[in-house]
Amino acid sequence: MKIVVLGAGRVGAAMVQDLAGQSDLDVTVADVSEAALDRLGRVEKIRADLSQAAEVERIAAAHDLAVGAVPGPMGFATARAVLNAGTPLVDISFFEEDAFALDGLAREKNVPALVDCGVAPGLSNLILGHLESTLESVDSFACYVGGLPVERRAPYEYKAPFSPIDVLAEYTRPVRLREHGRTVQRPALGRPERLDVDGVGTLEAFETDGLRTLMVTSQVPNLIEKTLRYPGHRHLMEVLRDSGFLDEGPVTLKDGTEVRPIDLTAHLLFPRWQLREGEEELTAMRLVTTGVENGKAITITYDLLDRTDAATGTTSMARTTGYTCTAMVRLVVDGLWKRPGISPPEVVGRDADCHSKVIDYLAQRGVVLRQRVETA
Amino acid sequence: MKIVVLGAGRVGAAMVQDLAGQSDLDVTVADVSEAALDRLGRVEKIRADLSQAAEVERIAAAHDLAVGAVPGPMGFATARAVLNAGTPLVDISFFEEDAFALDGLAREKNVPALVDCGVAPGLSNLILGHLESTLESVDSFACYVGGLPVERRAPYEYKAPFSPIDVLAEYTRPVRLREHGRTVQRPALGRPERLDVDGVGTLEAFETDGLRTLMVTSQVPNLIEKTLRYPGHRHLMEVLRDSGFLDEGPVTLKDGTEVRPIDLTAHLLFPRWQLREGEEELTAMRLVTTGVENGKAITITYDLLDRTDAATGTTSMARTTGYTCTAMVRLVVDGLWKRPGISPPEVVGRDADCHSKVIDYLAQRGVVLRQRVETA
Repeated sequence: MKIVVLGAGRVGAAMVQDLAGQSDLDVTVADVSEAALDRLGRVEKIRADLSQAAEVERIAAAHDLAVGAVPGPMGFATARAVLNAGTPLVDISFFEEDAFALDGLAREKNVPALVDCGVAPGLSNLILGHLESTLESVDSFACYVGGLPVERRAPYEYKAPFSPIDVLAEYTRPVRLREHGRTVQRPALGRPERLDVDGVGTLEAFETDGLRTLMVTSQVPNLIEKTLRYPGHRHLMEVLRDSGFLDEGPVTLKDGTEVRPIDLTAHLLFPRWQLREGEEELTAMRLVTTGVENGKAITITYDLLDRTDAATGTTSMARTTGYTCTAMVRLVVDGLWKRPGISPPEVVGRDADCHSKVIDYLAQRGVVLRQRVETA
Repeated sequence: MKIVVLGAGRVGAAMVQDLAGQSDLDVTVADVSEAALDRLGRVEKIRADLSQAAEVERIAAAHDLAVGAVPGPMGFATARAVLNAGTPLVDISFFEEDAFALDGLAREKNVPALVDCGVAPGLSNLILGHLESTLESVDSFACYVGGLPVERRAPYEYKAPFSPIDVLAEYTRPVRLREHGRTVQRPALGRPERLDVDGVGTLEAFETDGLRTLMVTSQVPNLIEKTLRYPGHRHLMEVLRDSGFLDEGPVTLKDGTEVRPIDLTAHLLFPRWQLREGEEELTAMRLVTTGVENGKAITITYDLLDRTDAATGTTSMARTTGYTCTAMVRLVVDGLWKRPGISPPEVVGRDADCHSKVIDYLAQRGVVLRQRVETA
């Protein structure tokens, strides 16, 4: 089967490596950057400007499946171009736009399109879909997730394993969540709580806007997502936000200069937030689901802790997001997921076979979810 | 005696009010702002652009003494113009330039010129001068001082009772101090320590560059100045500084905009740091001097805590700095201080009579220093 990975960034590269090791797959990677392509091993490479929809459509048409791994702002247009070509899509670009807006197109072309195939959203959604389909009822679902550097350097104790501008957006975008069946909206960075993570220590969790498709597809009356950081980071970001340093509207300084505060903040923080060459990072996720099973209250907790692969240098962020995405690719390749239209991972997770295949696929790569069940 | 106060800002206005209540003085105030002049009571007013040296010289020549109370950047030129006119000067403008550069001019004109006549520098210097002239020896002098709002609002818990850009400069300007007889330089905001202040609670002290003339005039082998803030403020300012938000060099953003980070930071913070109309503030100062008296180790601690005058609304910052300055005016008016040339308050404090006159003058206005003496 001929597969093209669109985008050779950190996560795209990890996926290319993973897929290229599977003998039944013929893997090609496309990116505008010669340097990014050069870093990859012996796979087919296409140098192409993926911001051009016609380019994407042409490339996708020549393949049996496309993996969308472009930067978020390009994601929606890229996904549409792939579907226009009538090519099945597995996407990890986390675009802002509503994925379901492409549902009609995917159905019309009669191809499956899996979106938000990362770790959270992604693996977290798959787990919730699985629990919603197996428990008598689910009352609440909380997703705690964060990517962190191993070394904690003052004052931010943070490095951005993915696009830093997206991180800043997480600190300002209002949080949509569900409480007692009602959708509510709150400012980001709220409701901090401490979370002890084995092997890492005490982290701080706070509300961010990351539920995405779950707000549409899930019937669970209590849904929440919280981001994990080392304690103190949240406070600093709150200070910056509340002082106006994350504002997107331009301000006029006394010498007449117009400047968007967020642009200066990005300029100052991003170099400080870059992982050094070879710097170790980790991904921590906890999913807490409460519900009823056999008439009794049940709490199911999943914990995931993944670290940079010391042998290959592949970051845990690339591993946990990328391998979830390639597991989804495998579902489509193996004909386990055929349903035409847009499907986020929680929908896939409702299929017991698909769910266990993804979990097994990740476990084979050392990405292991530990499960703990408590009954009342 | 005809006295002119140059500058009708918050401190200048308090001094005008104070001096105008003294029957042997004929008080005039000069400022470029009609509005600032209008806020003052029944005194002579001159609307004049004090950034023009010729204007200042003309006005000073028509008076027997000039009080310099212009913004810091205008201070040196204003002082020079006053001395050029051959008029005695008492100055509170805290200009950056070396005051002793005007010593020759003041001597040539045969007039006294008292500079840095605020609370710290100012009253603090006077006290040290007094102790240096009365104790057998002085080993160390530490000055802790801060102006703070009574209400503590997150996250900065700070309002700037004087020019906010000068406050930011205090957080970046390297600190010059003396240790074991050697002049050393360290980054600002360093060596934080907690300080319990009766009536206020726990404050945080950190090193700032405020010793000024003491680094020249004093022989004390250990000299230090620390600024007082509510705990936590220092950390936030350190984060902003270390992240580049206080940098004065311009940076070029990705859209080509050139911006000095300090200008944006000032733009964002100053509205948040303004005392609201009628908002109460306080000034806290502690002076700790160690030395030898009668062959025994001695520690002398002075504490000052002053608050906004509820009846008049005069801020404690205007009271403590302004009344120290008007006390110095009184020394010159009464012929107690005649020495031609530049004299900072520590030199004045060596004169026992001048020292006690200033202390009494302040006490009459409710600005009271409590003294505590401990011997080994």
